[in-house]
Amino acid sequence: MTDLPGIVITGASGRMGQMLVRTVLASDKARLVGCVERAGNAWLGRDIGEAMGGAAVGVSVTDDPLEAFAKAQAVIDFTSPAATVEFAALAAQARAVHVIGTTGLEPAHLEKLDWAAHHAVIVRAGNMSLGVNLLVQLTKKVAEALDADWDIEVLEAHHRMKVDAPSGTALMLGDAAAEGRGVTLDEAKVAARDGITGARERGSIGFSSIRGGDIVGEHDVIFATEGERIVLRHLATDRTIFARGALKAALWGQDKIPGHYNMIDVLGL
Amino acid sequence: MTDLPGIVITGASGRMGQMLVRTVLASDKARLVGCVERAGNAWLGRDIGEAMGGAAVGVSVTDDPLEAFAKAQAVIDFTSPAATVEFAALAAQARAVHVIGTTGLEPAHLEKLDWAAHHAVIVRAGNMSLGVNLLVQLTKKVAEALDADWDIEVLEAHHRMKVDAPSGTALMLGDAAAEGRGVTLDEAKVAARDGITGARERGSIGFSSIRGGDIVGEHDVIFATEGERIVLRHLATDRTIFARGALKAALWGQDKIPGHYNMIDVLGL
Amino acid sequence: MTDLPGIVITGASGRMGQMLVRTVLASDKARLVGCVERAGNAWLGRDIGEAMGGAAVGVSVTDDPLEAFAKAQAVIDFTSPAATVEFAALAAQARAVHVIGTTGLEPAHLEKLDWAAHHAVIVRAGNMSLGVNLLVQLTKKVAEALDADWDIEVLEAHHRMKVDAPSGTALMLGDAAAEGRGVTLDEAKVAARDGITGARERGSIGFSSIRGGDIVGEHDVIFATEGERIVLRHLATDRTIFARGALKAALWGQDKIPGHYNMIDVLGL
Amino acid sequence: MTDLPGIVITGASGRMGQMLVRTVLASDKARLVGCVERAGNAWLGRDIGEAMGGAAVGVSVTDDPLEAFAKAQAVIDFTSPAATVEFAALAAQARAVHVIGTTGLEPAHLEKLDWAAHHAVIVRAGNMSLGVNLLVQLTKKVAEALDADWDIEVLEAHHRMKVDAPSGTALMLGDAAAEGRGVTLDEAKVAARDGITGARERGSIGFSSIRGGDIVGEHDVIFATEGERIVLRHLATDRTIFARGALKAALWGQDKIPGHYNMIDVLGL
Repeated sequence: MTDLPGIVITGASGRMGQMLVRTVLASDKARLVGCVERAGNAWLGRDIGEAMGGAAVGVSVTDDPLEAFAKAQAVIDFTSPAATVEFAALAAQARAVHVIGTTGLEPAHLEKLDWAAHHAVIVRAGNMSLGVNLLVQLTKKVAEALDADWDIEVLEAHHRMKVDAPSGTALMLGDAAAEGRGVTLDEAKVAARDGITGARERGSIGFSSIRGGDIVGEHDVIFATEGERIVLRHLATDRTIFARGALKAALWGQDKIPGHYNMIDVLGL
Repeated sequence: MTDLPGIVITGASGRMGQMLVRTVLASDKARLVGCVERAGNAWLGRDIGEAMGGAAVGVSVTDDPLEAFAKAQAVIDFTSPAATVEFAALAAQARAVHVIGTTGLEPAHLEKLDWAAHHAVIVRAGNMSLGVNLLVQLTKKVAEALDADWDIEVLEAHHRMKVDAPSGTALMLGDAAAEGRGVTLDEAKVAARDGITGARERGSIGFSSIRGGDIVGEHDVIFATEGERIVLRHLATDRTIFARGALKAALWGQDKIPGHYNMIDVLGL
Repeated sequence: MTDLPGIVITGASGRMGQMLVRTVLASDKARLVGCVERAGNAWLGRDIGEAMGGAAVGVSVTDDPLEAFAKAQAVIDFTSPAATVEFAALAAQARAVHVIGTTGLEPAHLEKLDWAAHHAVIVRAGNMSLGVNLLVQLTKKVAEALDADWDIEVLEAHHRMKVDAPSGTALMLGDAAAEGRGVTLDEAKVAARDGITGARERGSIGFSSIRGGDIVGEHDVIFATEGERIVLRHLATDRTIFARGALKAALWGQDKIPGHYNMIDVLGL
Repeated sequence: MTDLPGIVITGASGRMGQMLVRTVLASDKARLVGCVERAGNAWLGRDIGEAMGGAAVGVSVTDDPLEAFAKAQAVIDFTSPAATVEFAALAAQARAVHVIGTTGLEPAHLEKLDWAAHHAVIVRAGNMSLGVNLLVQLTKKVAEALDADWDIEVLEAHHRMKVDAPSGTALMLGDAAAEGRGVTLDEAKVAARDGITGARERGSIGFSSIRGGDIVGEHDVIFATEGERIVLRHLATDRTIFARGALKAALWGQDKIPGHYNMIDVLGL
């Protein structure tokens, strides 16, 4: 048991952090060795299991990442760009795999990850679900195989609280389709249809967004031509898939040489 | 055989007219007794079967509607508003059921149908498919049964040549949903989402339109709440359903008293 | 607070039992007053909150249902047919509403519920979700409206652990379709297709069952004819809808006269 | 015009044969040079255009395949295994490309095609549509990428006249999934579920078949795991895609060396 890879979760008291903690605790391939929070967080010093409303698990929440990382083989990190840059340096010192699900990193942040990637494995992805990453690959391949007689449409559905449309994942799929077809999404994108639109423009990529209930996330990439259609669909029904994808990345990275990786590498596509 | 109801098709040389002719010829519940076209039409005087590239069927195309209607128990009419108003008067004289699939009738046209409806049965509908008319009824009922905790979305898909969005049928479904919920579609409608839209507004009715290939027509009415969803879906895969719906209306009207009817009446819902 | 209806959960240590406990604890319209388990259950005597891995809630698990029911206004019971028959008699003595989600009750079990229903309210349903019960109503109506030119198929998908097929809910939908069409499901049912089946028999009702992952429950009732299809679909994405439906039934039953009821009554459909 | 490749259609009076005739007649890349039927067929000696209810096209139906093949560059053949074996020998003698859409060929039939493939190009496929063949490729890739935590299910829907289940295309998709996973379909296949089936067996590949109306052909390959699903879907909405695929194969084969080919080769996937 003790030679299972040890995992540290950063931002452990947040919604995603707690989900990551539960996922590691439930796994028989990894063990939880640390939980990091910011100075001032109400859970500092408490057992993470008890803080989450359950039984004690023997890991206290700390605001000292270096101490936590020193015991770890991997750090899973869905926090903020500034924190992630700091954690990358510390994870590199500890030679721990750094799995980054943090979004909103600017080029300046990414540059700072480069030094860390010389010393340790970094796996970073905008969406940690295995299925979505596979769908992105498939979308590119199919768009390559089919010519513009096949119209491409991306349909997505999310819960009623989502504030933007199309979803980031829908745009990622649209990018893959455009790349497969040798164009840019900027040229091809038709974002919403309303009123007298005229006939569909050949080669365009259309987007539609449904909002309702508590839909976790559904994406269809539709290729439609005369007499037939191909649809590539991903349904996310449980937010834990993002946590499980991150854990898979942490385990995958254990025997890799230092460098930047993404979920496509983890999937081995 | 000869006591089967006799049907006249107006605008018989057009795309919809030919489909109506084929539908009547294929039916064992009706017989084709006349085909009407405008003066000057190239098919006048020709056998309609031969004109359509097949074997003779014993019915010639005429530009004299009154003579044709005199032999008929029903007239099926997908033409133009002006022609339809004229045909209504003649069908009423002949006491023939007048099935109207013509779109774009204005209030002035509709008034002129009133006189005819005192003397003969008129069945008029924007969409002659049995399935779509049933879906409209279901949508209203479900919207009545469910409160605004259930978000309503209408999704439709059509072929790449369609020039408007959302489809007329999608709007008809949205109207039914709004009516069931006791609001107007004008207040509730959200026609397309793009960019930072904010969270979904409670009680709104969203529309999404997919365009591609040769999709005949697909409509989903989605009711989504926490943990569950109901979807009412109609798929049209063959344009002949509109012709068969019209023929069904023609047969249904045979024993009815004069007046205005629609496909809801024909369906007996 | 103490005048909120008191609820007892039977089978409280099971998967569904725990979900019912959580739902009652989270409600501001009811309070948890008892948890029943079988003699020998490992949780007997323990606080249910602690046993579930959280904080104490002041209710211990007991194997004495009569004592528990005596303090309750309602019993929610998703257990086994034999246990449910026993609980019905005890709930009737206690004049507590008995909400039954137990499946697999045979005619012999149902007869034994009749005595209880003379003394207390019984609400029994194969599926406690609002959406599914609405879908059952719609299915009957649509099957009534459409003749046997429309082939009826029921498709369901559930998680990989489900041991029976088709699902009870699929059969409930099939029953509604058969009733709408004026036949019995026994005559019409085609349960699975494999090999040389011959052409589809007119008027039959087909069933298909998908099993995979952790799918909570998806049901499609398909009406397919030449050129068009209507699909009535329900998606359950969160098991708590069944627990919330059961609690809703328990509250609804508080002011009703003794007798048998179902979710159609509760939902006022 | 006369140097366009000449095509012979076998089984020309059947439903698929007539569609192939129409497709060749409508093409500007090939010309119809022969139509073959069995001795005793009612259309023998008649012009195929007239027999199909239209204008004459100058090609009469014959029961002498050798004479017909002698004038042809390709033979398109959707008949029976026994007839196809015979046609293969004759097409090889004539050095004509033999496009085979016939299903149900047993190993004994396939052996007899080997001799022919030494002398002429044979293109054989269970499904001639571009989309389905692409889906087969995708299915194999996805099954390779995902482990047995992802349950695989194949769902297909066809018209009410189809006499076998699952469809040949569904089995082709199942084969591709099994191959991707390194097992045989024989080991993995679960063909229909009914009654007490027990929990789903890990690694199995399930099949479900829907029959109704005039559905041309719909196939879903579902990969379902905890919290997410990938679905690869193909919809055929017009049978002409199979005829157009066959004609594409006939033209593609014109400059190839003798041997066995399939649609993957034709489509360059």
